[in-house]
Amino acid sequence: MAGSSIGECFRVMTFGESHGPAIGCIVDGCPPGLPLTVEDIQQDLDRRRPGQSRHTTQRQEADQVEILSGVFEGETTGTPIGLLIRNVDQRSQDYTKIRDRFRPGHADYTYLMKYGRRDYRGGGRSSARETATRVAAGAIARKYLRHRLGVEIQAWLAQMGPIAAQHFDGDEIQRNPFFCPDASAAARMADYLDALRKAGDSIGARVDARVRHMPVGLGEPVFDRLEADVAKALMSINAVKAVALGDGFAVVEQKGSEHGDGMRPQGFLSNHAGGVLGGISSGQDLRVSVAIKPTSSIRIPRPSIDVHGQPVEVSTTGRHDPCVGIRAVPIVEAMLALVLMDHVLRQRAQNAEVQAPIPPIPAG
Amino acid sequence: MAGSSIGECFRVMTFGESHGPAIGCIVDGCPPGLPLTVEDIQQDLDRRRPGQSRHTTQRQEADQVEILSGVFEGETTGTPIGLLIRNVDQRSQDYTKIRDRFRPGHADYTYLMKYGRRDYRGGGRSSARETATRVAAGAIARKYLRHRLGVEIQAWLAQMGPIAAQHFDGDEIQRNPFFCPDASAAARMADYLDALRKAGDSIGARVDARVRHMPVGLGEPVFDRLEADVAKALMSINAVKAVALGDGFAVVEQKGSEHGDGMRPQGFLSNHAGGVLGGISSGQDLRVSVAIKPTSSIRIPRPSIDVHGQPVEVSTTGRHDPCVGIRAVPIVEAMLALVLMDHVLRQRAQNAEVQAPIPPIPAG
Amino acid sequence: MAGSSIGECFRVMTFGESHGPAIGCIVDGCPPGLPLTVEDIQQDLDRRRPGQSRHTTQRQEADQVEILSGVFEGETTGTPIGLLIRNVDQRSQDYTKIRDRFRPGHADYTYLMKYGRRDYRGGGRSSARETATRVAAGAIARKYLRHRLGVEIQAWLAQMGPIAAQHFDGDEIQRNPFFCPDASAAARMADYLDALRKAGDSIGARVDARVRHMPVGLGEPVFDRLEADVAKALMSINAVKAVALGDGFAVVEQKGSEHGDGMRPQGFLSNHAGGVLGGISSGQDLRVSVAIKPTSSIRIPRPSIDVHGQPVEVSTTGRHDPCVGIRAVPIVEAMLALVLMDHVLRQRAQNAEVQAPIPPIPAG
Amino acid sequence: MAGSSIGECFRVMTFGESHGPAIGCIVDGCPPGLPLTVEDIQQDLDRRRPGQSRHTTQRQEADQVEILSGVFEGETTGTPIGLLIRNVDQRSQDYTKIRDRFRPGHADYTYLMKYGRRDYRGGGRSSARETATRVAAGAIARKYLRHRLGVEIQAWLAQMGPIAAQHFDGDEIQRNPFFCPDASAAARMADYLDALRKAGDSIGARVDARVRHMPVGLGEPVFDRLEADVAKALMSINAVKAVALGDGFAVVEQKGSEHGDGMRPQGFLSNHAGGVLGGISSGQDLRVSVAIKPTSSIRIPRPSIDVHGQPVEVSTTGRHDPCVGIRAVPIVEAMLALVLMDHVLRQRAQNAEVQAPIPPIPAG
Repeated sequence: MAGSSIGECFRVMTFGESHGPAIGCIVDGCPPGLPLTVEDIQQDLDRRRPGQSRHTTQRQEADQVEILSGVFEGETTGTPIGLLIRNVDQRSQDYTKIRDRFRPGHADYTYLMKYGRRDYRGGGRSSARETATRVAAGAIARKYLRHRLGVEIQAWLAQMGPIAAQHFDGDEIQRNPFFCPDASAAARMADYLDALRKAGDSIGARVDARVRHMPVGLGEPVFDRLEADVAKALMSINAVKAVALGDGFAVVEQKGSEHGDGMRPQGFLSNHAGGVLGGISSGQDLRVSVAIKPTSSIRIPRPSIDVHGQPVEVSTTGRHDPCVGIRAVPIVEAMLALVLMDHVLRQRAQNAEVQAPIPPIPAG
Repeated sequence: MAGSSIGECFRVMTFGESHGPAIGCIVDGCPPGLPLTVEDIQQDLDRRRPGQSRHTTQRQEADQVEILSGVFEGETTGTPIGLLIRNVDQRSQDYTKIRDRFRPGHADYTYLMKYGRRDYRGGGRSSARETATRVAAGAIARKYLRHRLGVEIQAWLAQMGPIAAQHFDGDEIQRNPFFCPDASAAARMADYLDALRKAGDSIGARVDARVRHMPVGLGEPVFDRLEADVAKALMSINAVKAVALGDGFAVVEQKGSEHGDGMRPQGFLSNHAGGVLGGISSGQDLRVSVAIKPTSSIRIPRPSIDVHGQPVEVSTTGRHDPCVGIRAVPIVEAMLALVLMDHVLRQRAQNAEVQAPIPPIPAG
Repeated sequence: MAGSSIGECFRVMTFGESHGPAIGCIVDGCPPGLPLTVEDIQQDLDRRRPGQSRHTTQRQEADQVEILSGVFEGETTGTPIGLLIRNVDQRSQDYTKIRDRFRPGHADYTYLMKYGRRDYRGGGRSSARETATRVAAGAIARKYLRHRLGVEIQAWLAQMGPIAAQHFDGDEIQRNPFFCPDASAAARMADYLDALRKAGDSIGARVDARVRHMPVGLGEPVFDRLEADVAKALMSINAVKAVALGDGFAVVEQKGSEHGDGMRPQGFLSNHAGGVLGGISSGQDLRVSVAIKPTSSIRIPRPSIDVHGQPVEVSTTGRHDPCVGIRAVPIVEAMLALVLMDHVLRQRAQNAEVQAPIPPIPAG
Repeated sequence: MAGSSIGECFRVMTFGESHGPAIGCIVDGCPPGLPLTVEDIQQDLDRRRPGQSRHTTQRQEADQVEILSGVFEGETTGTPIGLLIRNVDQRSQDYTKIRDRFRPGHADYTYLMKYGRRDYRGGGRSSARETATRVAAGAIARKYLRHRLGVEIQAWLAQMGPIAAQHFDGDEIQRNPFFCPDASAAARMADYLDALRKAGDSIGARVDARVRHMPVGLGEPVFDRLEADVAKALMSINAVKAVALGDGFAVVEQKGSEHGDGMRPQGFLSNHAGGVLGGISSGQDLRVSVAIKPTSSIRIPRPSIDVHGQPVEVSTTGRHDPCVGIRAVPIVEAMLALVLMDHVLRQRAQNAEVQAPIPPIPAG
């Protein structure tokens, strides 16, 4: 109700502020018997971790996760898994100058209006720091999905400002600091960001994702359609302003004869739908795309007001990501993992006995 | 869990198939004391009702709603409101020829794979007929929001295939059968649809919406952010493939200095954010946009398979909307009303005592 | 949130007042493929139906249920099941004299204080009439449990005022109007109630229940223990003031050496626990007991106040059950069915893959 | 869904096993602005803490709580509050001899059957150690209820085996190690327990509680009645086998003329109902009673089986409470606080605007 949990059967609740003692989460509903170690979680956390290249915030967080419960003799027990990450490198003093003023485009104003107070240190709860716990919980879901069902989730930076990836090389994604599948675009992104940092500005981005080896039958019409829960999960990530499935906004100009994916015994003939029909996964690849706004914490001065309602100019120094879209890549993967895992379990609850009359057709 | 309910404090659960005896819903959590009559609900239902122009399905449904509970002496009592709409004009025989085959782009395949059976008559539960109950429930939420808080929700058809509205005349929306704010675009849409119907094809659309006089402080970070719940609600509407807030996918190419909405004591200087900052409403207008795919039930033959896995060609006759985007307009409004109403009540639960240090600034 | 739904995987939401047009419910989450007819539901409703002997209220309600959705070709489809029961025999005029005053022990006062208004006709939403929808929904759960898992749920009137059943004859339960397993006690109950009715008074009762062929492993520690959800479901029935599992309050005086049920390969040696250990069903019979208070609507005048806060005497004429415990018997069975069904599905969600190292031991 | 959370508006999720690194919880939904320190929580934890007299387990746990988030400058911020308690004094080796066998009356058997494995060290998740997190979360709810609404919650040991408190002295409760309101009964309890410990046995107990200065209007009919949620919360405590409200099982033999609490402008004339009418609090004191079974971990040998299904005798040495009812007292208080807090917030969500026609009458 108060918004800190997601999922019904695989339910994650998170806590923690940017500059508090720690952040963490509880993962409730993980089936027993999954082999799970700190390393399984740590490797996903490390991909999101700040300070790994000059292109992201220089805050140095080890993001070392501790498993506090739910695992015994190397396997999950079916009881809740407590995860803890201590905060290490806070510089709260950086924030004293914005403590009384609102950064345009930031949650400063709305948190104060809603709660009557705000933890101004590093954005408090509204900080993207919170997403580390999503990645930690998502790593468990991902491992289950891959280990038990063969599901593969991959996201990448498809566009940063004016620079879009022109071709897709899956292996390249892990080779450059942008998670970009096009090495040449990645090189241009580096130059672009260097200039941007110098100018004290920030830039938007688009992250795309694909899930292969999707189970058929996930999604609970009519409100908990798979795409609806995917949209919610992705739109709940800081800075996301739009979510598209399959052809997304391009469907506005498509005809039915063009959009509907034909079927043949050997498989689907196309995938305009993006893997979901009528709210239920078809077994085709899930294809999603999200738009991520430019960071609101920039050095360029902006017109604003202070907490007394007086006009001020706001310029944010401190350590910030000039393009939050980069580190959003592992977060998008984590959120997809959480949603799919939840729907796998939900599907089992109601349809464990179901036998469809034909086997699923190939993803095509 | 099984997907037929939405909302936490203002919770709606729906039931009903296209060709069953009736559809309906229960609205639980409406505060007591709201004046409510059948007419309040009926007028919204009438806007969604099929068969009102040659441009929508010719199925003739009176969509006459009955209030079964929760209202006493003309006002809501705080107890659940039961709503019932009898189905009248089913022609189930129209569907016998697709009973054994899957329409490309339709839920036929996924329902069968998930449930091991499907009610093929008119799409059963996957039919857009189900959305009438959303409009009915939404009408109650809308009335509350308008009556008690002055909130005004308006959606319109912003684009149909290649034809986009070029200017915005709010009064025009109710004057043409397309809910289009541009009379000249509406005229071109009529010609376009006539040709399309003749060709047996269908077309996608974009519906935009704006909510004025938004309360400040709605939305529950981090997962139940206002935009996340809006995205889920809109993506749960049949045929919606993408949802955008504020500038949507355009943010990908925006800089922070351009995107962040400046503030002044006299109000916000722009609204790129679309009314939500950090997951919480800012008091600015909520601006959303959804992409709606072309109907999958078309007359043009498409390659498919039947329930035995054999290749077939599928051509759908019967009565269908060539552009489901048209009738989606009141549904988008209803879903926005349901989400906002839920968050108004959720906000009260936790923050009833909060006094923000300054009054909200104007929407700007 | 607003209290009209129960269950997570098998979720039921109800609506309806005593003197409104209809009562009903939606059952969401029933697995597809269960054969289901109106008769399956009607036979349970008929057991709860008023006016079947001189010992219950003389209101004549046919309680004819209509299935509005979720069933196709005689089987459930996996989509929500809408159930409707029209109210027939209301005599709202009977209630005009209590419209301005509070019956001691009744919900009149608390509904008015909570909602600022109340539907005084027949108790409105607080009427036991609402429980008919529980019995209807419960009938579906019961059929599934019996049909698929062999689970047998049986409740009976164990005591009415000073008269307790002295022995247990399962067949006798359906033979007398009290659902009492002891024919001789039932005869004495008839005389007792005749005298009570004449005196214009009412009496409390105890209903006991037993579930045989319980699945092992139901219940979700730590908060959704099976006994916790059973306690909630039973305590949510009108007039229930206490719930006991197994030996109940007798455990207060038991030693550990006496209470703990010994185990042998051939089965459990006793059942003090009542079928639940550590919040999870053991496979032994579930044994529960509930205390039901005497009806607050009695003819004997009682001191009270009116809605202006002035002292009055209240005497309720109209048609009322002198012992609501009698008709509570099928309601207790229905609530047990709803809880068990929900937990069967929840168990599947998380533990579908689990193989315990040994087979369950007999209930003993 | 998986059972580790409770509450809707004030939602608590817990994690942790008896012999894992730590236990803890997240409290989501606490309104902003409540002054909160570690001491507020610690003092309630200290009352539940083991090893404080010879009458409870000799495990030495500091139970030192750490607040990880949600508090800023001494007040709650409205964001989730993370609480952590490190486990200190585990002697896991004590458990090797019961690792392969089931203690009669214990969760050993059911956990293994449900999850296919179990953390045998100290009972793992089924250990009463988990309740420390309930007390920690409950302390926050209690402080809010007392601080903002004047609500006072008090529980006590009303009976231990054959020894029942004969009179009630509220101040005495904190003076003896049994939380018993009768000093003379407490003295007899001490002797009784000494003998019991020598015999290697355990004993049941009854805990009673009373809540004064109850708000009127808490509870959400029809399923989330206040007494239903209270019953669930109390029945979710380890070892609780029965829950009663008001006169409890005594109502079975009461007449309506005797049970219904009369009303006068100056207040209620009695409180048989225990503070709830029709599922909604009346403003009278909430009166509840729970039965707590004797500990299943006893030294006296009992017949059982091992994990291979073979017959064995089980005798538990290690450190155990001979009467878990003693330390249940602060847990009962905590669970009542959690339920009431949740319902206070739920009441605000839906009924914030309600004005009842008369002021509440005194509790009487």
